[in-house]
Amino acid sequence: MMLALAGYPLGLSFAFLDPAHDAAAGQVGELVTGSYCDHARLAELADRSDLITFEFESVPDSSAAALASRTEVFPPPKALAVAQDRLLEKRLFQELGIPAAAYAEVGGPEDFQPAWASLGRPARLKSRRLGYDGHGQAVVAAAEQLEGAWLEVGRVPCILEEEVPFERELSIIGVRSGSGEIGFYPLAENHHQAAVLRLSLAPAPEVSGRLEQDARGISQAIMEKLDYRGVLAVELFQVGASLLANEIAPRVHNSGHWTQDAAVTSQFENHLRAGLGWPLGNSESTGPCAMVNLLSTIPDQSRLLAIPGARLHLYGKAPRPLRKLGHVNVASPDPGAVTASVERVGAVLGVDLPKPRFKGSYWPR
Amino acid sequence: MMLALAGYPLGLSFAFLDPAHDAAAGQVGELVTGSYCDHARLAELADRSDLITFEFESVPDSSAAALASRTEVFPPPKALAVAQDRLLEKRLFQELGIPAAAYAEVGGPEDFQPAWASLGRPARLKSRRLGYDGHGQAVVAAAEQLEGAWLEVGRVPCILEEEVPFERELSIIGVRSGSGEIGFYPLAENHHQAAVLRLSLAPAPEVSGRLEQDARGISQAIMEKLDYRGVLAVELFQVGASLLANEIAPRVHNSGHWTQDAAVTSQFENHLRAGLGWPLGNSESTGPCAMVNLLSTIPDQSRLLAIPGARLHLYGKAPRPLRKLGHVNVASPDPGAVTASVERVGAVLGVDLPKPRFKGSYWPR
Repeated sequence: MMLALAGYPLGLSFAFLDPAHDAAAGQVGELVTGSYCDHARLAELADRSDLITFEFESVPDSSAAALASRTEVFPPPKALAVAQDRLLEKRLFQELGIPAAAYAEVGGPEDFQPAWASLGRPARLKSRRLGYDGHGQAVVAAAEQLEGAWLEVGRVPCILEEEVPFERELSIIGVRSGSGEIGFYPLAENHHQAAVLRLSLAPAPEVSGRLEQDARGISQAIMEKLDYRGVLAVELFQVGASLLANEIAPRVHNSGHWTQDAAVTSQFENHLRAGLGWPLGNSESTGPCAMVNLLSTIPDQSRLLAIPGARLHLYGKAPRPLRKLGHVNVASPDPGAVTASVERVGAVLGVDLPKPRFKGSYWPR
Repeated sequence: MMLALAGYPLGLSFAFLDPAHDAAAGQVGELVTGSYCDHARLAELADRSDLITFEFESVPDSSAAALASRTEVFPPPKALAVAQDRLLEKRLFQELGIPAAAYAEVGGPEDFQPAWASLGRPARLKSRRLGYDGHGQAVVAAAEQLEGAWLEVGRVPCILEEEVPFERELSIIGVRSGSGEIGFYPLAENHHQAAVLRLSLAPAPEVSGRLEQDARGISQAIMEKLDYRGVLAVELFQVGASLLANEIAPRVHNSGHWTQDAAVTSQFENHLRAGLGWPLGNSESTGPCAMVNLLSTIPDQSRLLAIPGARLHLYGKAPRPLRKLGHVNVASPDPGAVTASVERVGAVLGVDLPKPRFKGSYWPR
């Protein structure tokens, strides 16, 4: 939906494939209702489209590949395949020399002992596929906990990954067009509650030029390796002055929603431009911004809109516990105003939000 | 369409009444096809809507009033009635003590002599109703030209208005909510080609605080008098240090399209907020902006998007001579960059555009 809202002004039109009859995107374009595995519906979508993208990471990469045989698809289906499998992701990081948490493959019980032996420290068992927002994970503090963890994640192929004592999670949104043109948004700092993203700060406070460059290097290496087209998010852990790659998301990303109100060009518009082979838009920040996710319920709009600098983005989705129903971007040239307004957003939501650490001396850089 | 694009993120949904089956807005909401005078279709629209607005000034005020008897309508139909009739508009200005060009009523040939006598100088005969973009007007340099002018405008009720040697056209976009909350965007300076708006500069260069206040006073007086709700544009002529009111537009206005990319809150969002009785958004400018209308044909998107600071807004309309098909907002914190980019937009369009007179010393104020 947000891609379409960004795309109509560029002269584009949109159709959507979604399993739900009441998918919110249907409000702003034609809706083809069907499963992402329904090849008849996929064909219908392909026939009416010049260009197809996805913003849901669990679209089967085989479906994306089937679409790609009929029309243009971006990002490349192979990026989807990598993002859907933690093992392929780890191997990609290794291949590109990108630092990441140590891991061992766990295909089944026969791997418990060697995997634990190779790591030898507290770790987390993660299913290779279909993990998101903390699902499909179990903490493993000792070798004998591996069996229970494996039952917990559903006896599926996994990786065992060392627990990294990181200081914060950052993410970098990169964008690459078919022509090879590349752009980066400044790093965002991400805060989770109940394993769901709650707040992103952008540009991330207290980021050295070196750290920013490291993040861009990681993003660029991945995009070039995958012959990427579109927006790519890379989630990163900061440990001291270093970054570890956590995972990639081959799509517009929640931690980049701040770009709608505090970057010259939003990630949504740049994703489309990249897919179309059009020149990329300026991805610079226009000022400090805090993005707050609206989860579970939709608060009274007018209370949110009364908050200085608050910009509302609802998705037209029905309320459901922990469902992402929208977000609020709080943007202001004045870092102190952002902090004050985030506190007011928290009060309307009835939640404690992390206090943005934007500093006066930090903006503009 | 632009109202809908601004409104979906606020959690609203949209249906449209339009005479054209292929109306662009139908892409982003349900389309009811019918004439603005078709009371069955109007009733259908009213039944499915909690709140109705219009962005086409020639909707009959009787249709707006019929809708208002079934559901909420904003701006008030009486504002539409005034805006549709130059005589009522003139009388409103008089009543509120708002300076405007002198005029005389011309109902028919019997008024030629007294009208000319009361003005006694070069004037313009303007049809009271359905005038826009220079249509329904004829220049009258001497009394004996009145008859020819009257034939030219179609022998309809007119006003004869003195020709004002103004220095420039400005416009003020005001917004008033049902609660009486009022906001103003900074003045825009408007440049026409072939009687059609081609370029607006906002904030208008070289505007004194006094001039800005005068414009706001005019807008506020009109909004309060009409118990207004929504966005109101007032076109003004600057003569020396004074302003003359030219006409009002009770809707989102072309000279306010710059607000999409260079104001904290766009006129579209604020129009909706005002209609809903929600708090108004900040209407301050974020930097100098030039809005260039795309007329007649749609240029290659990628050439426009390659221009620094250029933000594209296409309307999804079929090309037609002098039809407004979209606009480009050129925004940058650097006035010199705006000037350079406007020149590039002109080159892509193949037209000479006025050179923005934004000055370095002028921004920020």
